[in-house]
Amino acid sequence: MTEFEAFAVELAREAARVTLPFFRSDIGHVDKGGAAGFDPVTEADKQAEAAIRKLIAARYPEHGIIGEEYGEDRPDAEHVWVLDPIDGTRAFISGLPLWTTLIALRIAGKPTVGVIAQPYLDEIFIGGPSGARLLRGETETPLAVRSCEKLTDAIIGTTDPDIFTGAELGAWTQVRAAARLARLGCDAYAYAMVASGRMDLVAETSLKPWDWSALVPVIEAAGGKVVNWRGDAPDDNGQVLAVGDARLIDQALITLRRAAI
Amino acid sequence: MTEFEAFAVELAREAARVTLPFFRSDIGHVDKGGAAGFDPVTEADKQAEAAIRKLIAARYPEHGIIGEEYGEDRPDAEHVWVLDPIDGTRAFISGLPLWTTLIALRIAGKPTVGVIAQPYLDEIFIGGPSGARLLRGETETPLAVRSCEKLTDAIIGTTDPDIFTGAELGAWTQVRAAARLARLGCDAYAYAMVASGRMDLVAETSLKPWDWSALVPVIEAAGGKVVNWRGDAPDDNGQVLAVGDARLIDQALITLRRAAI
Repeated sequence: MTEFEAFAVELAREAARVTLPFFRSDIGHVDKGGAAGFDPVTEADKQAEAAIRKLIAARYPEHGIIGEEYGEDRPDAEHVWVLDPIDGTRAFISGLPLWTTLIALRIAGKPTVGVIAQPYLDEIFIGGPSGARLLRGETETPLAVRSCEKLTDAIIGTTDPDIFTGAELGAWTQVRAAARLARLGCDAYAYAMVASGRMDLVAETSLKPWDWSALVPVIEAAGGKVVNWRGDAPDDNGQVLAVGDARLIDQALITLRRAAI
Repeated sequence: MTEFEAFAVELAREAARVTLPFFRSDIGHVDKGGAAGFDPVTEADKQAEAAIRKLIAARYPEHGIIGEEYGEDRPDAEHVWVLDPIDGTRAFISGLPLWTTLIALRIAGKPTVGVIAQPYLDEIFIGGPSGARLLRGETETPLAVRSCEKLTDAIIGTTDPDIFTGAELGAWTQVRAAARLARLGCDAYAYAMVASGRMDLVAETSLKPWDWSALVPVIEAAGGKVVNWRGDAPDDNGQVLAVGDARLIDQALITLRRAAI
């Protein structure tokens, strides 16, 4: 692993040390969604981000940080860490072990190292310049997407169709109808399954930079591709399409492009 | 634990020994749904049921068995084991660790001992006459539902709204709109979260006896309740409503009852 990859793993382990004791504990959460809706965030999320930020500041004081909980710090630096200590806070509070810790390093604006970690499962999916692998305990397994030439053979996923706008829902429903099998409720864990060659396509919307930045290096180092719904590099519009086999992109975009922002 | 509870745990461990090597392996599956749709079943499912049946036949030759894979054997016996070695085969083939092994013992027709096990997580949720507990490694944790007086405070779940008929979908959508938060894609694992006091309500339909029998003792020994959409004991109509707090039943049935079979 490169220096930055090894450091990203170190950050993931630090986050796990903080978050895991809160999982399925009875420590409360506050509602930051207010009148706009239910948007839970746990103490674990905040404490983990604080802990990660401290390690980055100590090791690479010149690096920037963008985090879900504590905002931006030198976001225009050459090296910027993009953090979401608990992606899938709803899974977390429901006791479901599919929430993840997402950590990305952007170099010159490009997501270069990514981590998708699930502490309860002791899983760290990491992708970067040296490749993509799954770390579990002492075991290291290389990650590789699988071949899937046709959408009709694809296992696809999204977190919850209710997140989609009307046009997006129409597009998703059509992709789903074409696919072999759809799974719901996965949050970012679904992208780890694409990188592992278990799922073939994930389509989501309303993703923030800290939701999607970590996915890109993991999936791309495993041989897949992440784009927005116009087929370009994912950006702040939040529409993300991730595939294991790049031949699926055009087949999905025929439909998704009509709902592209 | 009682003798039958301990034996149910033994069966779950035997199933785990068989199923786990298949999970995220590349061993293929056959499609038993045929023209009717996609209904994957893995070798793991068959081999695990065969292994469990062998243990039951050796230990309790007079007991009956009803299994998803190999059908009925003395289904009218006083003691009948009801088996689904892999509930959530779609989660299984997607690499998602929320599939479960379901094992129930019915005595005189009544589900009396139940196991919901997830081998990759090393979790066995067991309920029966001696209570409800989670076994993980050497650790044993008592299970208890949580108090939730109002549907508006409830975390609810279902596997996939696409399973519902039109009337059922309408009913589910109304329950969901009232609830605090909904999770999709959980399969039987959601019931384990109700028994653990993490989720408050699960509503599903089209469940077979081997899908729901194991849930009843786990949830009821933890203090919850499982009924059909008319409010009676669950039966072959396959509509199931499970709650941690019995006060939620009437609030959910106001809507669900309209779609009751």
